[in-house]
Amino acid sequence: MQMRRRSFLGTMGLAGLAGSTAVTPAAAGSITNFKPRHDYVRLDEARRRPVLKRELFADPVVIESVELLRRDNNCLYRVRSTDGAEGLAVGHPFIAKVSYPMVPLILRRHFEGKDARDLDQLVFNAVERNLKRQGIPLCVHVAGIEFAILDMLGTLADVPASRLIGEPTMSEVPFYLGHHYRNLRDLPPEESLPLMDRDAKETDAKAIKLRAGLGDNLASDLDNAPGRTEKLIRMARELWGDEMVLMIDGNGSYGVTEAIRIGRILEDYRYEFYEEPIPWDWYLEQKQVEAALTIPMAGGEEEFGLHAFRYLIGHEVFQIVQPDLFYFGGMIRTMQVARMAEAAGLKITPHISAGGLGFLYMLQMVSVCPAAYTYHEFKMFNTLDANGTIIPIQSKGDPFGSHDGVIPVPTGSGMGVMIDPDYVATHTVFEA
Amino acid sequence: MQMRRRSFLGTMGLAGLAGSTAVTPAAAGSITNFKPRHDYVRLDEARRRPVLKRELFADPVVIESVELLRRDNNCLYRVRSTDGAEGLAVGHPFIAKVSYPMVPLILRRHFEGKDARDLDQLVFNAVERNLKRQGIPLCVHVAGIEFAILDMLGTLADVPASRLIGEPTMSEVPFYLGHHYRNLRDLPPEESLPLMDRDAKETDAKAIKLRAGLGDNLASDLDNAPGRTEKLIRMARELWGDEMVLMIDGNGSYGVTEAIRIGRILEDYRYEFYEEPIPWDWYLEQKQVEAALTIPMAGGEEEFGLHAFRYLIGHEVFQIVQPDLFYFGGMIRTMQVARMAEAAGLKITPHISAGGLGFLYMLQMVSVCPAAYTYHEFKMFNTLDANGTIIPIQSKGDPFGSHDGVIPVPTGSGMGVMIDPDYVATHTVFEA
Repeated sequence: MQMRRRSFLGTMGLAGLAGSTAVTPAAAGSITNFKPRHDYVRLDEARRRPVLKRELFADPVVIESVELLRRDNNCLYRVRSTDGAEGLAVGHPFIAKVSYPMVPLILRRHFEGKDARDLDQLVFNAVERNLKRQGIPLCVHVAGIEFAILDMLGTLADVPASRLIGEPTMSEVPFYLGHHYRNLRDLPPEESLPLMDRDAKETDAKAIKLRAGLGDNLASDLDNAPGRTEKLIRMARELWGDEMVLMIDGNGSYGVTEAIRIGRILEDYRYEFYEEPIPWDWYLEQKQVEAALTIPMAGGEEEFGLHAFRYLIGHEVFQIVQPDLFYFGGMIRTMQVARMAEAAGLKITPHISAGGLGFLYMLQMVSVCPAAYTYHEFKMFNTLDANGTIIPIQSKGDPFGSHDGVIPVPTGSGMGVMIDPDYVATHTVFEA
Repeated sequence: MQMRRRSFLGTMGLAGLAGSTAVTPAAAGSITNFKPRHDYVRLDEARRRPVLKRELFADPVVIESVELLRRDNNCLYRVRSTDGAEGLAVGHPFIAKVSYPMVPLILRRHFEGKDARDLDQLVFNAVERNLKRQGIPLCVHVAGIEFAILDMLGTLADVPASRLIGEPTMSEVPFYLGHHYRNLRDLPPEESLPLMDRDAKETDAKAIKLRAGLGDNLASDLDNAPGRTEKLIRMARELWGDEMVLMIDGNGSYGVTEAIRIGRILEDYRYEFYEEPIPWDWYLEQKQVEAALTIPMAGGEEEFGLHAFRYLIGHEVFQIVQPDLFYFGGMIRTMQVARMAEAAGLKITPHISAGGLGFLYMLQMVSVCPAAYTYHEFKMFNTLDANGTIIPIQSKGDPFGSHDGVIPVPTGSGMGVMIDPDYVATHTVFEA
C-alpha cells in the first residue's frame, strides 16, 4: 500500500539528470539555485512533442463557429465545423459564470476559421498569448472550448476523445475519494469522517483524501483548526485501518513552520501524499516544506501557466503535480505537464472540481495519461450544472458506474455522452 | 541624468540586510537561495502597516451599495454610503469588459454592508481570498471599486484621495512618455521615433520609454525584430541626445540569452532601465538576466499577488517594481508594495494603461508614494473610455495639463474630478 517518496523516485531511471543530488533538509539551501534538479532540456523536449494526433484526420477540420450558450449561471460550449460536425461541452460549475464575456470577446477569434488539427497551437495561443487576461477565469473557458472540439473530433473519427491525445494505459481508473461536501473543513472529525465513510462504503473506495486546516490562503503558523487536524489525521487512520490509502489537502492553510509540523504527523500516520499545505504561489517556501519532509508533496491545482509547471517539475517542488483540467486550460496542456512529469520521473494526478461533467473529462484524460499516479480524484457522480440542475446525459458506450474502487473508462466516441438536446435548448447563445 | 544601478543602490542605507552580497554574474548561482537579499521581516512589517487613514473618519462609513454600470464595453463603478455619500470611478479601458460579472457575483459581498474605514482588509480579502478567480481580470474590478470608495471618502473628508493613503511628496509629477500607439512595435524606428518625438515635443518630456522586440511572451532567443531593436536603441539616443532619459520595455519578447545581449547594448547607450525583457512569470530566469547586467531592471506589471512582490523585492529580481494600479487591484495594495520597496532600498514606478481616467489615478498614487522612481508613466491625456468616447470630466480644483515634463497633482477632493452625470446616465446597472 505504501508509496513513500523514495520508493517511487527510485523508479525514475533517468539519464542526464542535471544537479541530481538527494534532497535532504540539510541540502535545502541549494535547491532553488538556478540549476534545477531535473534537466530542462529533457522537460522542454517532452513538452513540445505534438499531442493531438493529426494523422487521424486526412483533411482539415475547419472550425466554423465557437458558441457560448448560457442559462443563468450555466455555460455550455458548442463548436461546429464547416462540414457540419458538432461538439458540445459543459462549463466549469462555479467559475465559468464570472468571466463568460471572454468567450466572444477574446477567445473565439483564436479558434474560428482555424483547422482543429492545429489544436495544440490554438490552445497554447489562447492561454499564453492573452497575457493581461491570464488566469483561471480565462483558462476554464479555453478548456471548455477544447473539450467541445475534442468531442467533435472524436465523434468524427469514431474514437473516444482520449484516443485523440494519447495511448490507453488503463480501462478502469482507480480513484481516491475527494471531499465534495461544502464546509466539510468546518466540521469536527466526529462529524466529517462519517460523511466521508458513507461515500467510501458506497463506492468501495480504496483511497480517501481529507482536508486539513481552514484553507482560504490563511498561511498561518498557528494551527488554524486548533487540535482538529491532528485528531482528523489520527481518527481517519483508526477508522479505516492500515489498508486504506489516505492523503490530505492543506488548502493553503499554513505557513512553512506549521506546514512542516503537520507534515511530520502525516508521516507518522503513513499518509500517501500531502497537498498544497501553504498558498500556491509561495514557491520557495513550498520547496522548503518539501525539503524538510519525506512524505510525497502534491500541488499545482491553481496554476495556469506552462512555465510554472516547468519550474515546479524541474526543481521538484512537488513529487505529484495536479494541474486542474479546467483551471489549467484543458487536456492538451495537461498532457504536456504529464509528459514533463514523466521525463522527470514524477507523477501526475489531475485535479477536478465536483459537478458538471468533470468526472467524465477526468476519465478521458487519466485513461491515456503517462506518469499517472496510482489514484485519481473522484467526487461522486455529481452531474449538477451551475444552476443545480442534473445534466441529462446518455452514455454512447457502456453505462457509467464505479465498482471496487475503480471507474470504467467511457467507451463511446467523442466525450462519450449525448447531452439531451432539450436541455441544451434551454440555453441561449451569448454575444458580447 | 544617469542613474545607474549602483548609484541608487548606494543610497539604501539598510541595516539588517540578510545575505546582502554584491550581485555579480559570478555570484548568480546563490541568489535564488532560500535566503533573500533583503530581510523579509522588514518587508513584512512595511507591508502590514495600515494604509488608509482611519483617523480622518470619526464614525463608520458604511457602504450601502457597490454597483457596476455598463454601456457596451465600458464599465463604471458607483458606491454609496448609508448616509448618502457617493463615489465614482471609471473602469479599465480594455480588461474590465471581459470579466464584469465578477462584480455582482463575487466582489460586491466583500464591500457591501462593510465599514469603508476597513478598506485595507476589504481589498486584501477581495483579491487574496478569491483564490480560484485570482488574476488581472479580477483585480481590475477590485481597483475600480476601491477608486470609487476613495473618491467617496475623499469627498467626505474634503481632501484629495491621495491624502487618504499617504503624505504628499510632490506637487508635480515628472513623467516619462510611454508608448500609447497600438502596434508601435511593428514599425521601423524611422517611423516610430517621429511619432514619439511629436508627443515628446508637445509635452516637453524629459524621459521616454521605448518598446523592444515583438512582445506577446515570445520568449525567443533570436532577435525577434531582427536588427530593429539595436537600431531603435541607437537612433533614439542620436535623435534625443545625451540629456534625454531613455528606458525600454521588452514586453516579454526574449529568452535569457537574447535578453542579456540586448541589455548590454542598452548599457552601451546609457539607458536608465530595462523592463520585462522575458515573460513575467519566468522568475528564476529574470533573476539570471538581472545578475548578468548592470542596468537597473524594472518589472512586475502583470503581477496580481502580494506574495509575488514580496519575493521580487526580497530577492531583488528588479531594482524598480511596477505594479499596475488596475491589474494589481488598486492604490492600497500598490502602497503596500511601495513600502516594501522602500524597506529594501528599491524604487517603484506604477504601471498604468492608456485611456480611461488612468492618468488621474496615477497622479493620485504617485504624489504620495514612498520610494517613487524619478519618472512616472504618462501616455498623454487620453481619456477615451472603453467605447472610444471621451469621458466628460471637470476638475474640482486646478485645471489639468503638463508643462516642462511634469504634471501638476490634482488638488480637488476625492479623485479630483466631477464626471458629467449625463454621461453616467448613459450606463445601466448590471446585475448578474
